[in-house]
Amino acid sequence: MRRETSPEDVGGMAVAQGVLTATGGKTSHAAVVARGWGKCCIVGCERLFIDYAAKQMSTNGHVIRQGDWITLDGSDGTVYAGQVQLATPEMPKHYHTILKWADEIRKLGVRANADTAQDARKAREMGATGVGLCRTEHMFFKDFEHPERSAERQLAIQEMIIADSREARQKALDRLRPFQRGDFMGIFRAMDGYPVTIRLIDPPLHEFVPHDPEKQKELAEKVGLTPQVVARRVEQLRESNPMLGHRGCRLLITYPEILDMQVGAIIEAALECRKEGIKVIPEIMHALTLDRKELKILVDETRRIADDLIQKVGIKLHYLVGTMIELPRAALLADELAEEAEFFSFGTNDLTQTVMGLSRDDAGRFLPEYLDEQKAAIFTTDPFQTLDRAGVGMLVEWAIQRGRRTRPHLEVGICGEHGGDTESVKFCYRVGMDYVSASPFRVPIARLAAAQAMIEEKRKKRARSAAAD
Amino acid sequence: MRRETSPEDVGGMAVAQGVLTATGGKTSHAAVVARGWGKCCIVGCERLFIDYAAKQMSTNGHVIRQGDWITLDGSDGTVYAGQVQLATPEMPKHYHTILKWADEIRKLGVRANADTAQDARKAREMGATGVGLCRTEHMFFKDFEHPERSAERQLAIQEMIIADSREARQKALDRLRPFQRGDFMGIFRAMDGYPVTIRLIDPPLHEFVPHDPEKQKELAEKVGLTPQVVARRVEQLRESNPMLGHRGCRLLITYPEILDMQVGAIIEAALECRKEGIKVIPEIMHALTLDRKELKILVDETRRIADDLIQKVGIKLHYLVGTMIELPRAALLADELAEEAEFFSFGTNDLTQTVMGLSRDDAGRFLPEYLDEQKAAIFTTDPFQTLDRAGVGMLVEWAIQRGRRTRPHLEVGICGEHGGDTESVKFCYRVGMDYVSASPFRVPIARLAAAQAMIEEKRKKRARSAAAD
Repeated sequence: MRRETSPEDVGGMAVAQGVLTATGGKTSHAAVVARGWGKCCIVGCERLFIDYAAKQMSTNGHVIRQGDWITLDGSDGTVYAGQVQLATPEMPKHYHTILKWADEIRKLGVRANADTAQDARKAREMGATGVGLCRTEHMFFKDFEHPERSAERQLAIQEMIIADSREARQKALDRLRPFQRGDFMGIFRAMDGYPVTIRLIDPPLHEFVPHDPEKQKELAEKVGLTPQVVARRVEQLRESNPMLGHRGCRLLITYPEILDMQVGAIIEAALECRKEGIKVIPEIMHALTLDRKELKILVDETRRIADDLIQKVGIKLHYLVGTMIELPRAALLADELAEEAEFFSFGTNDLTQTVMGLSRDDAGRFLPEYLDEQKAAIFTTDPFQTLDRAGVGMLVEWAIQRGRRTRPHLEVGICGEHGGDTESVKFCYRVGMDYVSASPFRVPIARLAAAQAMIEEKRKKRARSAAAD
Repeated sequence: MRRETSPEDVGGMAVAQGVLTATGGKTSHAAVVARGWGKCCIVGCERLFIDYAAKQMSTNGHVIRQGDWITLDGSDGTVYAGQVQLATPEMPKHYHTILKWADEIRKLGVRANADTAQDARKAREMGATGVGLCRTEHMFFKDFEHPERSAERQLAIQEMIIADSREARQKALDRLRPFQRGDFMGIFRAMDGYPVTIRLIDPPLHEFVPHDPEKQKELAEKVGLTPQVVARRVEQLRESNPMLGHRGCRLLITYPEILDMQVGAIIEAALECRKEGIKVIPEIMHALTLDRKELKILVDETRRIADDLIQKVGIKLHYLVGTMIELPRAALLADELAEEAEFFSFGTNDLTQTVMGLSRDDAGRFLPEYLDEQKAAIFTTDPFQTLDRAGVGMLVEWAIQRGRRTRPHLEVGICGEHGGDTESVKFCYRVGMDYVSASPFRVPIARLAAAQAMIEEKRKKRARSAAAD
């Protein structure tokens, strides 16, 4: 139970049976991570008052203490006091047959969002033919293959952030590099023959460092600094609106050594896997870009680092460099961005946030009223669940058309949570995307929706030609 | 000296000789407020470490304590230790002649951003012919005409926010209403014969309540609640990204009683002034709208409240109801919004933040690098100072064209800080705006720029027709 979660909590979430947060909505960090793992999760439980210091929460006069049992129903959002008896759902009989039919019909590709080898194997099992989004930062907090090494990773990333010189930062990055390389190898192996889109570091750095004095003291001891220096550095990282702050590719513009480490780890992993006879198709993705010049700096540097390594090893390796489209400016200037990017991936979570000026973590305060049929009834569906076609969708369509005008074979996909929503998947097909990417557990829904979109399109065409006769 | 300022600090800023903040950029709260008052201000001084508890700041090894002298040079951003001798600049000899010429040439209107009667009088003195933005929330913290009553205002707004029932909220609003009415009367009197655009409450409510335990205790005593209840309410208001949170018209959708109070105060003030023989042209403006249905609810309710009061008093009063365009979705769907709005005012500060995904308060961390010619050189000018024509500008132009397709005589202006920037003013003229609105002290620049835009346009036309011959 947390007020909200951040990458710092990923380790704890991995061992939890379920996740319950007081704030947030369908695309807040807790929801996205839990969905990726097929884990039960309830977010935006606004009536919870969670007291971290007292290790308890209260709601409607009830107090639940650490160690007490509660039961979550993730389908309807009910929280039960005590331990309710559970039943495991069974797969419907014709599940595989229907999905086989769906795959035969559909033209839209379905990839999965997967951050670890474990996720990637799950994704293949669910029928995904590629990874559409690998969030490299989730690797920083938890070693899923060797949990006992998690603390070591975490320390390296924190040391990198606290570092006050380029040398100290480089030292920490050198320790992170083999971890990242190993993670990428695991994913490439699981995706043998299928593309893997890897997004470079995205969240603001303050999400990776401890905020309470106790943990800051611990960190200070480990890295050999005073707690005051650590506290000051954490304070310096504080942002008024971290969502619109120093994150995504902005971090790589200011700290090019992070780009060097991440691209190096990806290419080294790819080359290693090639030696093992695995077919590797890496797609390196820059996040939060907003300008052609900015993207050019990043793409040029990415290619320089990658080509150097490839040349040294002497193995042929084909890779793509592309960008997320998650800011309105990137969508508006898509024709320019496509000069540099070999692919676009629509980050519709962030694009929804910026187009609508709606924080996914804070919208719980008023969005229910906006959706309530008895009250304002402004929206018919939650824009974080089903893509807002009128606004966000207009910009997506514009960007695809403009992007392909510059680069006709531009690969286009979506990696926001909308990739696992039926209506949104149909929209993605209609506007000409090559693939959608969803959490592994939502891949079957995406496969089915992609087939339905084809059938609906055909029916409409038939109806139109009948009307014309 | 503050890390950053918020509406809570407006009283303190009003009595300060200058303002210095550790974070922020050209459109952060401190910069906007100080500019409006013609007050010296330096923001984004990232090397300052301000320690509120110790009442001191340190930078480069120097420590400055509360009560020490420092001197600010607002033009180049230098902070001097100690008291430097100052000189008052003199107005150039031909100032009035040149501005008279400019006014004769220009077609673009120039209004001012003014939150108080004092600002409005200054605006008239500077040659503004109307108020393009009156930010009602600045009135909540300081009574500029009767400073001794400031505490009373502040308490009423805080009580309104802390209120846990509609009744308690209504009681606090009833006490605020005469204050707001008085403020509006002062502005209407100063603007006799010129339009006054009043923006309804905009910032998130947490900006109005105290965050330190001491002040929370004080507030609790005054309103007759326990400090725990106050602390809990403040905690509930905390947002991850307040810029994208529960603010603007979202507050009026969830708390319609605030709309009732504000519209009531505006119309009552207008009717009172009409009785005094003053010509009043109120333009009531909704902020942060993103959808036609949302705007329709607000406009209908605004008209109902206003028309009721007008009918009761029996005096004829013409007023407009319109909207800011400050979210990409509002700009994209401008044709729909123009069905409800009688005017558009581009809030290009927030529009820049959302289109570019750039927080004005946090951009200080990386924007300097983006602007540095020796480094990334991604932007040639600060997008918060000079409007980003390629991205934000594209959306502004789109919205004006779409809006006027629905409503040919739609009044269009700009009220972001760009309204006082030469290049941006020229852009506003070229895309067909009716007026720009700037801080009173920047009005002369806007008048001059508007004339220059006309002359440049004429020259271009002449060159084109010469080339055609």
